[in-house]
Amino acid sequence: MMKNCLVAQSGGPTVAINASLAGVIAAAKQSKEIDVIYGGENGIEGILQERLINLSEKFQDEDKIRQLERTPSMFLGSCRYRMKTPEQDTTDYDKLCEILEKYQIGYFFYIGGNDSMDTVLRLSAYAKDKNLDVKIVGVPKTIDNDLECIDHTPGFGSAAKYIATSVLEMAHDTYIYNIEAVLIVEIMGRNAGWLAASSSLARMDGQPAPDIICLPEVPFSKDAFVAKVKELLKHKKHVIVAVSEGIQDEAGNYISTEGGKVDQFGHVMLCGTGMVLRDLVATEIGCKTRCVELNVLQRAASHLASKTDLEEARLLGEKAVALAVAGENGVMSTLTRVKDQPYAVTYGASDIRMIANKEKKVPRTMISEDGFDVTEEMLSYLRPLIQGEMEMKYKNGLPDYLR
Amino acid sequence: MMKNCLVAQSGGPTVAINASLAGVIAAAKQSKEIDVIYGGENGIEGILQERLINLSEKFQDEDKIRQLERTPSMFLGSCRYRMKTPEQDTTDYDKLCEILEKYQIGYFFYIGGNDSMDTVLRLSAYAKDKNLDVKIVGVPKTIDNDLECIDHTPGFGSAAKYIATSVLEMAHDTYIYNIEAVLIVEIMGRNAGWLAASSSLARMDGQPAPDIICLPEVPFSKDAFVAKVKELLKHKKHVIVAVSEGIQDEAGNYISTEGGKVDQFGHVMLCGTGMVLRDLVATEIGCKTRCVELNVLQRAASHLASKTDLEEARLLGEKAVALAVAGENGVMSTLTRVKDQPYAVTYGASDIRMIANKEKKVPRTMISEDGFDVTEEMLSYLRPLIQGEMEMKYKNGLPDYLR
Repeated sequence: MMKNCLVAQSGGPTVAINASLAGVIAAAKQSKEIDVIYGGENGIEGILQERLINLSEKFQDEDKIRQLERTPSMFLGSCRYRMKTPEQDTTDYDKLCEILEKYQIGYFFYIGGNDSMDTVLRLSAYAKDKNLDVKIVGVPKTIDNDLECIDHTPGFGSAAKYIATSVLEMAHDTYIYNIEAVLIVEIMGRNAGWLAASSSLARMDGQPAPDIICLPEVPFSKDAFVAKVKELLKHKKHVIVAVSEGIQDEAGNYISTEGGKVDQFGHVMLCGTGMVLRDLVATEIGCKTRCVELNVLQRAASHLASKTDLEEARLLGEKAVALAVAGENGVMSTLTRVKDQPYAVTYGASDIRMIANKEKKVPRTMISEDGFDVTEEMLSYLRPLIQGEMEMKYKNGLPDYLR
Repeated sequence: MMKNCLVAQSGGPTVAINASLAGVIAAAKQSKEIDVIYGGENGIEGILQERLINLSEKFQDEDKIRQLERTPSMFLGSCRYRMKTPEQDTTDYDKLCEILEKYQIGYFFYIGGNDSMDTVLRLSAYAKDKNLDVKIVGVPKTIDNDLECIDHTPGFGSAAKYIATSVLEMAHDTYIYNIEAVLIVEIMGRNAGWLAASSSLARMDGQPAPDIICLPEVPFSKDAFVAKVKELLKHKKHVIVAVSEGIQDEAGNYISTEGGKVDQFGHVMLCGTGMVLRDLVATEIGCKTRCVELNVLQRAASHLASKTDLEEARLLGEKAVALAVAGENGVMSTLTRVKDQPYAVTYGASDIRMIANKEKKVPRTMISEDGFDVTEEMLSYLRPLIQGEMEMKYKNGLPDYLR
């Protein structure tokens, strides 16, 4: 018997999350097990409010699915709503099960990061307890690349490509004056330094920037940092620093000026780390210095998406449909790297319990001994992920995104 | 008799300034009047130190000129050195004349903005007084688009394309949460609002962002701004504000928090305008708000260059060579718009005295009545300038720029 499916997106946006949605839609359209494809607006929060839209109708046209694939952010919207655990309160879970039954949802795909996988974990277990015939499968995404059980996450490769390109371009901008200058580039990544590390890809053909990379995995010492910058300035006029917003001192205190605030999930909100370093350079060294915060563009700049990333994101969406239809429940579609060169991956599944609420950090072997750089192991890991460019469609001089 | 030529770059970088350099090199190579092409490193400052490089040797290969055309920032480097006037001190002028004679320079091309055109003005007059046989011609560039006697400046169109694309992408990023949110995008432009105005191009296919545009040409009232945001939030959840870094209050005081500092030219340094507006929204309205400063990427992101802009920049470089060889001195190559649709321009020259030290601001007719938006006249002016994309070459996943 054919059943309907539901797909929703959650957490922070990436350039690749709509590609995963496109993959789910394309595979669900082709599946003989799936009838109507519903989209839940604003993640679990919108589903609780029964804000479901018919994606089968909206995406009859293959071209529109292709356009979706290249559109940044989240077509279905997101939420930051965190459900209580069923032990605390079952209201939301009962309501969700009621809606899943009402719309005859046999398959539910939730595209998100580690917080969203927690929702997949709890809801799949709850629905199973209630004998609801629904398979719930997670589809990975996060620019942070901090999910377990997967070689790398969709969205990360495009963010890495944007970060490396931007550092390359800003280095060109910094080199023009014949005076000492330190550029600080603040990059996202709360507890995992993958994004900041990806700035290392800017080093091509003897282009030396970034000269220093600061990751949250390494306790940050202001003295050691100032000494390192001073040392570099003895031999060169321009020093480019890539710093993760989440660096902390030995005691685990964020270097950021606004380290006190927390968001809805209890995560500490970070802002201003780059400016702290800029002020440090200005005070301790006194040369020209500037801080650039890459901010939301690193997760939204679809015009510079990695083709590898978007293709993998789409395939992980398709894989999720295959897994659900094959009867898997409480899993996330994953990819495993077979080889760096030539780059090859295989697609599979992992138990959601191994992923939810866990964070994969940069291993010490990928960080240089002095803690201010990455190793060749990191570069080999990163290089394949930014390869290839999407053929963008432009309209009146701007990328033609789906609205 | 063949003479040599010298070309140098000055002021802040743009995406198109190397295209103008490529134009000068290509035209000079073809000219029967010109022998060796010298490049002066770091503008007038490097020339005073006799740091001249042989560009004829460096750019024998046409492919390399094409690569230069697509490389951001300034291949020859820049300076912020301001010479005294000849009335104050002739040392620098005498030194420059000595170097021009020593290298048998018959033609000197200086690519820059209004400060650089001041150098062209004074030096061309001084050299003429000394009966030096050298033609000095300016080549325009500035992302600010604030030069007189030219329809628009090279570098502006690419910056406009980057700004509009980024606002479009960040709007997608803002829309995903179903909560009230105000995004403030801080855009460059000290006294002229052209760059901030170009954000209006993001409004395509019913995409409404930016909802508010604040230009330095309109005195900024905090009360009126807060009232405008509140009014918009009555009808929509997301408000996107594009603000020029240079907005000032009725009394002419910069809104920026760091409005006190001045640079070497006595220009007030601006930083933090967007953050002032963000804090204003947080305090007076209390909804979620974020500030993104586009910073140097708007003048360095060659991967998103406007084809129209780069082609015009190259042709303005070529035109400068034609003018100099034809005997013109103390002029700048210019372009005049013939038509918006189909877009057409002609190339010519303007007396440098009409350009140096002058600033072209946004006329009132291009600004909406309430001062928080632009008019259709502005959109018609802007649209042609961002058309077309360069075919970028990528290497290992990154733009292949000339180092």
